[in-house]
Amino acid sequence: MDRLYEETLLFDFYGELLTQKQRQIFEEVVLCNCSLGEVAEDHGISRQGVHDTVRRCGKLLASYEEKLGLMRKFLVIKKKAARIHEISENEEVRRLADEILEEL
Amino acid sequence: MDRLYEETLLFDFYGELLTQKQRQIFEEVVLCNCSLGEVAEDHGISRQGVHDTVRRCGKLLASYEEKLGLMRKFLVIKKKAARIHEISENEEVRRLADEILEEL
Repeated sequence: MDRLYEETLLFDFYGELLTQKQRQIFEEVVLCNCSLGEVAEDHGISRQGVHDTVRRCGKLLASYEEKLGLMRKFLVIKKKAARIHEISENEEVRRLADEILEEL
Repeated sequence: MDRLYEETLLFDFYGELLTQKQRQIFEEVVLCNCSLGEVAEDHGISRQGVHDTVRRCGKLLASYEEKLGLMRKFLVIKKKAARIHEISENEEVRRLADEILEEL
């Protein structure tokens, strides 16, 4: 899995377990690709502080997945629901598979 | 939802985010229905300590669900996958629905 994609998914899953400040900084640097300098200025902290926060958040998010494994489960389910949608000719089944995909 | 069932589900989902000691105490009291006195003696702490730990763990688990909402998503998906399994006559679809249910 591409690293940015994985970090985005981890953030979607477990981001709410970070503090608001951690979330903002991680989002700005990793997901929106802002420069460390910009983010440091916005938050009134050093570039090193931004860098450390991003690193810590990445480790935290990965540790949540290591403990809970829910992202992996969701990805497996997503693949299977998409396959059901692809092969089924039953309208209700296709709708249900769609609804499962929307939950994910 | 029945409270014990909900606490069991919450523990299944988020229990790994508790410390090992918290997990043991919560499991013994809530899931295995041991008495506070027994658990207190086993862990060398007071009954009040056991009571407080169980209460704190219950709140922590509920707060994880409040933030992440993953248990609710899983329950919704489970219901839909069971329905797909029930109504589909396509063998591969039924197998995939089964596999989804096994993930949950």
